[in-house]
Amino acid sequence: MSRDRVYNFSAGPSVLPESALESARRDLPDYKGCGISVMEMSHRSPMFQEIFDTTKARLKTVLRVPDSHEILLLQGGATLQFAAIPMNLMEGAAADYAVTGHFSNRAAKEAEKYGAVHIACSSADSGFDRIPTQERLQLSPDAKYFYYCANNTIYGTEWQYVPETAAPLVCDMSSDILSKPVDVSRFGLIYAGAQKNMAPAGLTVVIIDKALAGRELPYTPQIMSYKTLIESDSMLNTPPCWCIYMLGLVLEWLEGQGGVEGMEQIKRERARRVYEVLDNSRLYIPHAEIGSRSDMNITFRTGDKELDAEFVKGAAARGLLNLKGHKVAGGMRASLYNAMPMEGVDALTDYMKEFEAKHHV
Amino acid sequence: MSRDRVYNFSAGPSVLPESALESARRDLPDYKGCGISVMEMSHRSPMFQEIFDTTKARLKTVLRVPDSHEILLLQGGATLQFAAIPMNLMEGAAADYAVTGHFSNRAAKEAEKYGAVHIACSSADSGFDRIPTQERLQLSPDAKYFYYCANNTIYGTEWQYVPETAAPLVCDMSSDILSKPVDVSRFGLIYAGAQKNMAPAGLTVVIIDKALAGRELPYTPQIMSYKTLIESDSMLNTPPCWCIYMLGLVLEWLEGQGGVEGMEQIKRERARRVYEVLDNSRLYIPHAEIGSRSDMNITFRTGDKELDAEFVKGAAARGLLNLKGHKVAGGMRASLYNAMPMEGVDALTDYMKEFEAKHHV
Repeated sequence: MSRDRVYNFSAGPSVLPESALESARRDLPDYKGCGISVMEMSHRSPMFQEIFDTTKARLKTVLRVPDSHEILLLQGGATLQFAAIPMNLMEGAAADYAVTGHFSNRAAKEAEKYGAVHIACSSADSGFDRIPTQERLQLSPDAKYFYYCANNTIYGTEWQYVPETAAPLVCDMSSDILSKPVDVSRFGLIYAGAQKNMAPAGLTVVIIDKALAGRELPYTPQIMSYKTLIESDSMLNTPPCWCIYMLGLVLEWLEGQGGVEGMEQIKRERARRVYEVLDNSRLYIPHAEIGSRSDMNITFRTGDKELDAEFVKGAAARGLLNLKGHKVAGGMRASLYNAMPMEGVDALTDYMKEFEAKHHV
Repeated sequence: MSRDRVYNFSAGPSVLPESALESARRDLPDYKGCGISVMEMSHRSPMFQEIFDTTKARLKTVLRVPDSHEILLLQGGATLQFAAIPMNLMEGAAADYAVTGHFSNRAAKEAEKYGAVHIACSSADSGFDRIPTQERLQLSPDAKYFYYCANNTIYGTEWQYVPETAAPLVCDMSSDILSKPVDVSRFGLIYAGAQKNMAPAGLTVVIIDKALAGRELPYTPQIMSYKTLIESDSMLNTPPCWCIYMLGLVLEWLEGQGGVEGMEQIKRERARRVYEVLDNSRLYIPHAEIGSRSDMNITFRTGDKELDAEFVKGAAARGLLNLKGHKVAGGMRASLYNAMPMEGVDALTDYMKEFEAKHHV
């Protein structure tokens, strides 16, 4: 498999490991001699069941998911979980939400339909440029859970600690799952859209403490009942088979990179190289506060919108794709997910330095 | 692309057109020279937007969807629609449900959470072997909609007419969409899981009369609000990009086959050949009543469970895959979706005749 070398800094869907794409291409017409492709397999067939079981087992091993927790491989994205979480866990009562960005804000708004939402913290006033410290979290005694988003894709901030709360932790890890070790046993529920660090868009991974299942509101759709989904091992209906297969290939690649420990070392180095350029720059203004910076999505701007646009355009001309910031944040954003090779990071920092040399007065 | 010739009679996920798989393989590492695969594209990128728009336009043309209706490309499968439909259209009041199989029964049960469900008809007593005639439908004056499932994948029955009702028609066309022309303007809502006649599993197509949007119950999850999904053109969150791309490839192939008119001729001939063997057989017992027979899923048995198992095993040994009936129905099932070549049908009927000659005493 060969293709022109470009580097894809998209915030998601995003770059996938070359080896995973190669395997997918190899298997496409005929998966392991069975005569059909994975896209054509019945989800009830032994062939697909093996793919499903192997992928789930790989994820359990890589993330060290304890037996107390179940892994669900679902559809619907984070937006579906914004509703499923309060419908299943809030019991019509209350929950604490940490609002540190666009998506945690949307999650909190959605939860208001199903109970009382306490805002445990908000960094909206400072343009979502920081993560609150533990001391600043306002926790309520009646909260059924504490909700936060581990990494804010749009604003480029990331929680550097796991909050201490009496209520079970519920965490949206869409954009930093599999990038570092996580003590899953500390969480009531972890979920992640796959389209950043895991697989193509169309798959959502939920990891839930089984003790929390079975508390859904009576009008909860069956497709959103964690209890039912656990009982049916994610096959209440046809799962997103192709994405699950791709997740298996990505996990195979990840194991070869040293698992989440290997990923953590690499992602730290990737981010270090870009932040170093930003911190030594007189042109670029990083968005996130030091101490809240994301290793996955690095946000910055020049302060001049036309120059920002020129930066993005010039980058694309060099094969450095999708560096434009999200529309609500503006500026630039470099997403450095697991599958981004270090050569891509170096190509980016070289370009950033050249662009500064050319444009800084 | 070459692969050992097998014929896949799976009820879904199921066979895809060879040309669609070939295009997917060709484009896999590098979609049209852009340097990345479709699986890695931002759903907000111009490249993906073009794929999305072209696919939607193709579907609109092929199915002749009037401007009064909107096409939505979603996640979650039929099971999600079982809840979304009553949450959006029932207004807490009532609806009529025709129960002609497993899935319409599940849809009716789910709807009971959101209002009063009137059973307009049920063929449960005769093992779901028939579709009621228009005269036998018991319609209620207060129904906000009339719900039915056009083709019953498990039992192999198919509605041969579109019911006449005062309430808007809501139809699950998962297993016969794109197999024949449909007058979309007669329907309030049509939906279909993609994994039979359209694309790999993970995509659900909804076609809704826009006049019906905006009636959702207050606790309807945002991801299920047809109004919100119409307003965001199915991009409230990241759509199942790969499946949408594959749907585009399948539609391109379908256009080359003469569209839904071409498909109708072919599917009639496919089904005719298999039913002919059944009707001339002294071994096989067809499940569905004449007049209710499905062209998509043909169900039959020998009356001897061991012989059924031998039939399925012998077929697989010849490369005729997935002929085992659904567990709730037993026996055999041949699913003859759009992408099943006539050679596959002939290979099946040859085998059926040989098997009968060998086993009929």
